Formats: sequence, C-alpha cells, structure tokens
Amino acid sequence: MVKVLVVGYGVIGQRLADGVALQKDMELVGVVDAAVTLAVRALKEKGMPYKLYAAFPEVKEKLEAAGIPVSGLLEEVIKKVDIVLDATTGGIGAKNKKLYEQHGVKAVFQGGEKDEIADVFFHGYANYEKGIGANYLKLTSCNTTGLIRAVDCLDKLVGIEKVAITIVRRVADPGDYHRGLTNALQVDKAPSHQALDLMTIMPHVNATGILVHAPITHGHFITVVATPKKDITIEQALEAFKAHNRIRVVRLEDGFLGNASIFKYARDLGRPRGDLYEICVWEDTIVKSGKDIMFGIHIPQESVTIPETIDGIRAAMKMELDGKKAVDDTNKYLGMPSWK
Amino acid sequence: MVKVLVVGYGVIGQRLADGVALQKDMELVGVVDAAVTLAVRALKEKGMPYKLYAAFPEVKEKLEAAGIPVSGLLEEVIKKVDIVLDATTGGIGAKNKKLYEQHGVKAVFQGGEKDEIADVFFHGYANYEKGIGANYLKLTSCNTTGLIRAVDCLDKLVGIEKVAITIVRRVADPGDYHRGLTNALQVDKAPSHQALDLMTIMPHVNATGILVHAPITHGHFITVVATPKKDITIEQALEAFKAHNRIRVVRLEDGFLGNASIFKYARDLGRPRGDLYEICVWEDTIVKSGKDIMFGIHIPQESVTIPETIDGIRAAMKMELDGKKAVDDTNKYLGMPSWK
Amino acid sequence: MVKVLVVGYGVIGQRLADGVALQKDMELVGVVDAAVTLAVRALKEKGMPYKLYAAFPEVKEKLEAAGIPVSGLLEEVIKKVDIVLDATTGGIGAKNKKLYEQHGVKAVFQGGEKDEIADVFFHGYANYEKGIGANYLKLTSCNTTGLIRAVDCLDKLVGIEKVAITIVRRVADPGDYHRGLTNALQVDKAPSHQALDLMTIMPHVNATGILVHAPITHGHFITVVATPKKDITIEQALEAFKAHNRIRVVRLEDGFLGNASIFKYARDLGRPRGDLYEICVWEDTIVKSGKDIMFGIHIPQESVTIPETIDGIRAAMKMELDGKKAVDDTNKYLGMPSWK
Amino acid sequence: MVKVLVVGYGVIGQRLADGVALQKDMELVGVVDAAVTLAVRALKEKGMPYKLYAAFPEVKEKLEAAGIPVSGLLEEVIKKVDIVLDATTGGIGAKNKKLYEQHGVKAVFQGGEKDEIADVFFHGYANYEKGIGANYLKLTSCNTTGLIRAVDCLDKLVGIEKVAITIVRRVADPGDYHRGLTNALQVDKAPSHQALDLMTIMPHVNATGILVHAPITHGHFITVVATPKKDITIEQALEAFKAHNRIRVVRLEDGFLGNASIFKYARDLGRPRGDLYEICVWEDTIVKSGKDIMFGIHIPQESVTIPETIDGIRAAMKMELDGKKAVDDTNKYLGMPSWK
Repeated sequence: MVKVLVVGYGVIGQRLADGVALQKDMELVGVVDAAVTLAVRALKEKGMPYKLYAAFPEVKEKLEAAGIPVSGLLEEVIKKVDIVLDATTGGIGAKNKKLYEQHGVKAVFQGGEKDEIADVFFHGYANYEKGIGANYLKLTSCNTTGLIRAVDCLDKLVGIEKVAITIVRRVADPGDYHRGLTNALQVDKAPSHQALDLMTIMPHVNATGILVHAPITHGHFITVVATPKKDITIEQALEAFKAHNRIRVVRLEDGFLGNASIFKYARDLGRPRGDLYEICVWEDTIVKSGKDIMFGIHIPQESVTIPETIDGIRAAMKMELDGKKAVDDTNKYLGMPSWK
Repeated sequence: MVKVLVVGYGVIGQRLADGVALQKDMELVGVVDAAVTLAVRALKEKGMPYKLYAAFPEVKEKLEAAGIPVSGLLEEVIKKVDIVLDATTGGIGAKNKKLYEQHGVKAVFQGGEKDEIADVFFHGYANYEKGIGANYLKLTSCNTTGLIRAVDCLDKLVGIEKVAITIVRRVADPGDYHRGLTNALQVDKAPSHQALDLMTIMPHVNATGILVHAPITHGHFITVVATPKKDITIEQALEAFKAHNRIRVVRLEDGFLGNASIFKYARDLGRPRGDLYEICVWEDTIVKSGKDIMFGIHIPQESVTIPETIDGIRAAMKMELDGKKAVDDTNKYLGMPSWK
Repeated sequence: MVKVLVVGYGVIGQRLADGVALQKDMELVGVVDAAVTLAVRALKEKGMPYKLYAAFPEVKEKLEAAGIPVSGLLEEVIKKVDIVLDATTGGIGAKNKKLYEQHGVKAVFQGGEKDEIADVFFHGYANYEKGIGANYLKLTSCNTTGLIRAVDCLDKLVGIEKVAITIVRRVADPGDYHRGLTNALQVDKAPSHQALDLMTIMPHVNATGILVHAPITHGHFITVVATPKKDITIEQALEAFKAHNRIRVVRLEDGFLGNASIFKYARDLGRPRGDLYEICVWEDTIVKSGKDIMFGIHIPQESVTIPETIDGIRAAMKMELDGKKAVDDTNKYLGMPSWK
Repeated sequence: MVKVLVVGYGVIGQRLADGVALQKDMELVGVVDAAVTLAVRALKEKGMPYKLYAAFPEVKEKLEAAGIPVSGLLEEVIKKVDIVLDATTGGIGAKNKKLYEQHGVKAVFQGGEKDEIADVFFHGYANYEKGIGANYLKLTSCNTTGLIRAVDCLDKLVGIEKVAITIVRRVADPGDYHRGLTNALQVDKAPSHQALDLMTIMPHVNATGILVHAPITHGHFITVVATPKKDITIEQALEAFKAHNRIRVVRLEDGFLGNASIFKYARDLGRPRGDLYEICVWEDTIVKSGKDIMFGIHIPQESVTIPETIDGIRAAMKMELDGKKAVDDTNKYLGMPSWK
C-alpha cells in the first residue's frame, strides 16, 4: 500500500484527501495544515476521519487551543510516507520541497507552483509515461487539466494542429471572501497561460487564447476552436467525447442550461460537496466553421484535478506503467466510468 | 411504521424524501413528479434509491421515454400511504388536496400554498400542539420557519413584545435559471409577509418588516430587532440560542464571514448537497439599543423547513404528543443535536 | 430637414432620440410611448425637451393622469414625419409597420424584429449602399452591429475567410428587474444568431459562434478568431482598428481592466448616461495562432446601435450616397471621431 | 469668491470638483492627483476643463509622459487657495494636513480619515453651527451622511429616542476591480460604525446597527427602525420626508423597484454620470410596529456626500451663518430642490 500524505487542507487538499482515501491500493496517512480554518473545524466536527498534522509547532498550539486534535508535526509524519500531494498556497510548495527531498519522499505539486519545482509538468492523459518513476511532478492547473482532456481526446482521434480558446473563468470558489468581482468582467493579457501550458504538455499543438474573469463561482466555461489535421464530423467528435472516461456530454434540452445546472445536478447526485470529477461538453455547442470544430466545456474547478493528481501517484510510484490503465484504476475507486 | 409519500420532487421534495428516509419510525413509500427534471435524472443515475411515481399517465410516458423507471401513478400509490408531504409548486397542492381527501390521506403542504388549504398553519416549535391529529397542515415558509425558531427561543426565555425584521432574501437557488437578479436589490412592499405570518403563529407578538431581494443564492440573511418584556443581557440571549437544538451559533473570528461561509462549511462537513438544517446566529451581531436586542441570522433556504415538516408528520399522525420530544426525535434521525 | 419620429421610448428609443436631436440636418419631431415608464417620468422631470405622443388614446389618458404632458397620438403625428425609428419591443414593430405604410412613412426597425419586416437587413458599414432609398430597414442587433465593425474593418484590410466568435453576453441592462441571472452562466444553442446574422450582411465570410449569458450589466465581451485571406501582423490589425472611426483601442496598462472600466470611463468623460457609441478592442488581447488572428472586444449594448441607426436615416432618405461619408456625418454630430 | 482646491481626483474628488464648479460663489482653482488614472485620462479627453496639479514632482513626470497637461505641483497651488476638499485615500489626508496647516489653508476631509484629523465631525444638517469658522472639518461617510438626513428629518419633526439600522452595503463602485464579492454577503462585527458615528453627530439618539456587504454596485440600502418620542403616523413621516430638500420619496408602483432603478432614473434624467445627490425613501416601506416607525432608504454612495461637503465650505469660510440657508444655497447651484 502506497502511503500518501496530503499537505495543505484547503479547497484542493480536502478533495485530494477524500479521493486518496477511496483508492483501495493507497493509504492516506493524514493531512497537514498551517491554520485553524473552517476546513479543519469541519474535520473536527466530522470526528477526525483523517489524522491531522501541524505544519509547525506554533500551529499545533493554535489548533489545540481551538480544541482540534493534532496527531503530530509535518516533520514527524513525513518520515512515514512514500509520497506527498502538496496542495499548499502557491509558493509554499517550493519551501516544502526541501523537507521532502531531505526525507527522500516524492511529491506531486499543484498548478500554483512554478514549473521549476518539478521534474515533469504532468497530465494523466497526455503524458503519463513521462511521470513514471519521477520524483517530483507538477500538475497542470484546473483549467488546463480539463482543457487537455478535451483537446487530447480529439487529438487522439484525428490529430489537432491548433486551438484558440476563450476562457470565462469563475473568479472565486463558493465561500471565498478574499477575492471576488461584482458586476464586471476582468480581461487578462493574452495569450492566456492555459494556452501556453497546453503547448508544454502537447508540444505538437499550436495554442492561443483569451481569458476573462467572470463574477460566478460554479465552474469555468471554455470555448475551443480546434483545427483538426483532417476533416471530422460533429458526430465523430461527439462519439469520441462520449467514449472518454473523464468527459460527460450534457444537453440543454435535458435541463443542463449552464454551469450552475451542473453544480445542482452533482449535488442532487449525492456527490460529496456537489463535486464533479468529469468535465462536461455541451452537445448543443459543437459546431463547425470550415474544417474547424468549435465546442464549449465546463470545468468544475474545485475537483477536476483530483483524478489526474492521483494518476500522478500511480506514475511516480510505478504502480502501473500503462497510462490508460492507470487512469481507469483511479476512476474505478473514485466511482467514475471506465473507457468505452 | 407511518407510510409517507413525497409529492413534488424539486428542491424541497428531494430533501424531504432524504429526510424521511432517515427517520427510523417512518417508511418512505416513494416520490411523485410531473416532469423529466434534472432531479429525476439524478435519481436514475443514483440507481433509483426511491420509487418514482408519475403524477399523470402522460408524465409516465415521458419519463419512460427518457429511460427513467416508473413504479406507477400517483392515483395508485396514494392508496398505500398514510400521509403526503406535498412539495409541489404553489397552487398545485390545492388541486392535489382533493385526491388526498378522496383517499382519506393526510397531508403537509409547503409555504407556497394559500393558508386556506390547511386546518393548521404549522411550525414545529411554536404551535406543535395545534397540529396533533390534524388532517391538513401548512408549513410556514423557509424564512418564517427559521425566523420563528429564533424569536420563539427568546420568547420562551423572556417574552417578546414586538419585532422589526429586515430580510435580505436570496433571489434564486443554485442552479435556478428561471429567476435571478443582476447587480440589483429589489424592494418589496412592506410589511413583509414573513412578519405577518409570524403573527399568525405567535399572535402575542407585534411584528413588522422590510424585505429586499439580493443577487445571491446561498441563504437568506435576517436582522431582528426584538423588544423583550423584560431586559436581558446579550449573554443570556446567546446562551438561549446555544441551547436550542435547531440553532447554530457562529462567529466571524472562526471564519464564518457570511452566508457563503456557512454553505462552504456544510459542504466540508459532508452534509448531502452542502445542506444545513439549522439556522445560524452570528454571535458578533448581537447588540442592544435600550432594552431592544438586535441580531443577525442565516436561513439555509433549501433545507431549513425539512425538520419542521417532519415534525408535522409526528403531530398529524399523533406519533408523539409532546412537541419538544417530537422535535428531538426528528433531530435524532436527521443527525442534528438534542436540546441542551 | 428630415423629420424623424422615435417610436418606443425605452433603453434604445431614448438614446435614438438624443442622437437624432444632435444631428443638425435632422429634426426630431417627437417620441412615442405606450406606458408610464421611468423613462417617461424622467422626460417630464427634465421639462419635456422632446414632445411626447401616446401610442393609443388609453395611453394618453394614463400619461395625463400621471401628470405627464402629451402632445397627441401616434396616428396624428405620423402624418407630419418622413421616417420613423421604431424601437418598440420585438414584435410590436411588425404591427406598427402597417400604420407607417398607410401614411407612406419610411422606418428603421431594431434587431428584435423578424427579418421579413424590412426590405434590407442593414449595417451602416458593410452594406450602406443596399439601404439607399429603401423604405424599410432592419438594423443588426447590438452584438452583431459591434462585431461587424471589427470584422468588416479587417475584411476591408486583408479579406476575411471565416470567423469563430465567443460571446459573453450581459444578461440585463442596469435597472432591469424583469430578467437576470445570479451566479450562473447560461449556454445558448450554437451557432449563435450573431454568427448567422453576420453572414447575412457579409455573405462571403463563413461564421460560427457560441454564446453564454453572464450575470453582468455593463457590456458584452466577444472574442473573435478570424482567418484572414493572407497573413497580417498584430501591428497591422492594430493600426486598422485605430484608424476606424467607431472603434476605440484600449489597454490594460492604462487602467481598462474590463468592461466595467469602460463604463466608468464613459461616465467620467461626461457622456450622457455613461454611454459609449464606440466598441473597444483591447490591444492586449490581440494574438495570433498560425495565420488566425484573435482579439477581444467590448460592446456597449445600450448605445452601440445608435450611430448605425442614424446612418440608416441617411441611406433611406438618400441624404448621402457615399456610405463612408454618411458615417462620418453621423459621427460628427454625435461628437465621435472621423476616419483616420 | 472662495478659492477651492480638490485634492484627490477619484470617485469622490471628481464629483466634488464638478459640484464646486457649479457654485457661483466659489472658484475651483484646480484638482490634484497622484497617479495616471482613468479619471485623469478622461479629464484630458474632455479637454482639461479643470487645471490639474501633481501631488509630487515624480507624479508630474509620469502624467506628462502620458501626454496629460499638468499646471504645477500641489505645493505651489496650495499657496493660492482658501480651502481644500481632501478626497484622497484614507490616511493620506492626515499627511496632507501638515501642508495645509503650513500654508494656513482650511480643509474638509472625507469619512475615510480618522476623527482626530478634524476639529469638527461635520454634517451639513445636524450640526452646521459647529463647523462655522472651523479650520478642519471631517465629513461623515456616505452611509452616515444619508442616514442622518433621514433620522434628523424625523428628529426635527418629533424627536427620536433610538434607532436600529440594517445596512446592505454595496461592496464596490461601478468599475472597481480592487474589491468585490461574488455570490456572497459578508457580515461585519456589530454595532456598525455608522450607528456609532450617528451618535457622535446626534448625541441624544441611542443607535445600533448591523451591516452586511452585498455584491452590488448601485447604492446602499438601509432599513431604519426609529423610536420617536411621541407617536406619529406614517403620513406625518411621509410629509416630513417630502418637504426635505435632500430627500426624494419614491414608489414601487412608479417603477422604482430597487436601487438599480434609481441609478437608471438618474441616468435618464441626464444627471452627470447617473449621479444623484438625494437619498431616496421608499414610500411603500414605511410601516409601524407599536410606536416604532420603520422605513427603507437608498444611499447613492458615489455622490451623496457632495452637498454636505460643499456645505462644509460655507461653514468653514463663514459664507453663511444660518445652516438651513447654507444648505439651500448649495442645493440651488447643484440644481437640487429648496426646502418646502
């Protein structure tokens, strides 16, 4: 059993912990945090299903003063684990890495860290083989992770020459008070980093894009204009999306009117926190212009990177050498579909 | 075992079904709906944990055409149940009542129906005794239900003469596309119906209020200015709120910065759909002006009426004659606290 | 002096009246409305700078009962005018057209009417010559009008083969209470009508697009992926945009962070109502992918169609046969720039 | 002619400059700013109707590099003026005060500064006499300024014992990107500073209050529960509000559905930037509970303090010793009504 520690128990860290706990071939040793947050208070109210470790001695004191049981310090528990999923705020991971190196522990970092932190910039699908046996992986960001699922899906079908993406980015997660927009879109300098990141993972694709931040919380919306190497029909693209084990195809006529419908549906499904691991493609948005194929996708920003991060454990720990099979293993334990 | 049918499987109906299914002394016979909604699609994707009945034959055909298993019609299943929780859109309940009467089945209606529909305008706390053995109850609306919890709590402590409330009402639920506001507050004619409804349930209290609709989805916020019969301290009020089994006291310093924090916390707690049955009182908002006591509360609009509706079953079916004990029974099965 | 009547004094009608009143070679005979709206109340509070006519006798009574001076009925004033700008709610224009025909009065309809209403689907730039002498013109919608400015600008520079657009549509105007979205994007069936409409005006361009409604009020945001007939540089595109007399180029570094900045700037400029007639192109969003050129534009939805509608008067009344010159005349009186 | 300088050309400073420029008995010497903002760019595009001075030499260089004409430095122009309206960001005014003292120049500071900065915490109505001849005044904040208008109005009618207020505060101004909330209300620790500030100006009134920040931009909404010294009718309160020269009474049935309607109406009125100097009271919200009177008001946050700040000039410069008359003078030049 691969022993996994989750460092950083925020929006992503909580979901990574839940996801790892479901993997029958992994053991969640515990979670680490550095403050008395609502997430930590909820962990206590739930009866401490996971052991909590403090990032520093002072943090341990504060947590205990707030009545929250602490099982020890990061510097202690790090000795007992094989691999860390580091979901700390951007920049902290770079500091933590020294500790991991010192103890010979592998790690998967999230998209907020700089690329230099890792040996491999990783995406479960498009470059699983590069992560095999690597010590330090950095995952693509939520938008890029979801975007690559869709582009890689068509790329494997027919080959993609270039893409131009428009990202309508949710500006805050539900419950965020440290950031937000009110009645405004905010434009970023183009090209968006997601387009550049896509080219790092899929260097044979020419990508550009424009990003605007929008005052919403339940998911990013991306349109993709993809130029395939040879002409395909809308139906062929649709079939490829439907066969993918991390893409869900939705339809307006079924009631999926926008990204908030998807959040509602995931809540009604009983998914913890109303989370969805899959990206969604709207069938009703797939159109063509000449050879180009255009479509719209939904990225559930809080949870979309969980499967690919767990894939990263499988790669780094050499639990599986075949990427497609690794992805299916992760899916199986997360209650997601298999490849069709 | 009291046999319960939930008619109307929308925002409230889904939650009523889940709540009844948890009550060990009740049996959920099934749920009824009249359209192929996302809620019904989610029921199917979950593997039909509840039997689904169609409101009409045409609905049965549509559901089956969409691949959703249907166990029969409302007019059939109505014969097998003791009581209906009617959570249909406002106005439909009045039509349904004829069918319930015809089959001698009791019913609890939601706040959207007119008062005439019921023998008793019901709130689990303030007038449980009036519901005992009644055939038709109508529950107070979500705002009124939550508001009465808080006012009744102080009323039982010290007696309340009058209240003036300000309601900042969430304009839509997450996933609603048929209503919404963008960058606007909408003012209602005063006094608000919630103030009037409170006086129906608590006729000894003089109440008025102003309501504005706000462009948010995660909970109503109400301020209450209450004039007690005799002076009490902030600490006394706080203790009373803390001892209540359906009120949660939260603090800004713990990270509960607003209503979106509460939704986030309930998601992190693992509550299905991120729902909360309790209202929250912010400790940091309790202030005094002369003898008047003022405070702010959060109403989780999607789920707050679930406990009181289930209390209604206990009253109507005479499962328990002591209201305080009935409320504790409902709470126990819902995983909520006991009276302190 | 061409005598102009504005029928429908809502968001568009008010602005058309103000725009026509500024044209030194036109006379605004009056405005017509069918209800006691805030716009009409404001007209009264301003001292009736324009004569107000009632759509029907009953409307006249209501307006007078509200203390608003009425100069007569539509059926009377129609006899004194050369051309009507019909800015009524979609569908009403078709009814009004019969009256206009009866009196031999020309008309320009807005985008909400069906195409059949008009002899020509009109855009000041791309097809001015088709409107010359025509009796009934229908203007493109706000998004399409603004979009065509930008696409036509590049088309005249280098020729455009195809475009793929993504529209982030503001869901309501400031002060709208009859529509709105809260924390949601709403996806439309693709291709968007704006892409189809563009092809009606510019039949040599292949266009497709996806539209999402966003919970904002100050302007639509559109990204355009345009495939030119021959390669051009970003600088060449930028120069063409800068030389256009109805396009404004803005930069993030100057403080134009998004569409709300543009509204703020127009307010600070002293533009009535904070309106802008120009569309804006963000210099920082112009990027290339292969030969394709991609950029982001802002559409001030309340006011963008005003200049092209006034161009429509010039065309229909044969005030000017050269489209480019007509456009410059309209601009001059509106206080907008000349061609560079 | 009293010579006035406006220091800080942001949201408030721009409006102060415009307001002073309209006063026939004052001369606007110029405006001062410290950065190349959109407001400054708009000033240039308008053709420099006001002379612009730079806060520091470095600022002068930056402005000139951006092509904006600068008439000199703050330290130069300060010698030529009688009084400064300091509308800089909170905290800067305290630094500037030294310069003003050095040159024997009076100043009126805005609500963001600490109370210690001024000799008098000033409100045009409630304490004009305290400002007469004072050297340094600090104005109440936008919410408090508007709130006091309404409370003082009733206080002068009948005497007010105590008030309990609920403030729904707009979280950002149109065009703000440095702050915002998305789908959330944020609760402040009670009592709100506005209640405390009210007591400083009106020490005979006992005040408390709760404030929540809401994701809107067009105006604060406040409910007031006021306990009068003797009973008054709703009609009496209404008449008092209608007779006030800085209060506007609005009605839902006239189309004023919420704060966004008021912004729309002010735009349609042709008010520069869609600004309103008056607060609005909704007639439909005035209700009673026992002797208490409750009502809802709209505060146009960007412009509401302009009249009272100009009143401050009249007081400090002893232009008028009778407060009521001073207020009428300010109003007259701003195009606002007289006392009725």
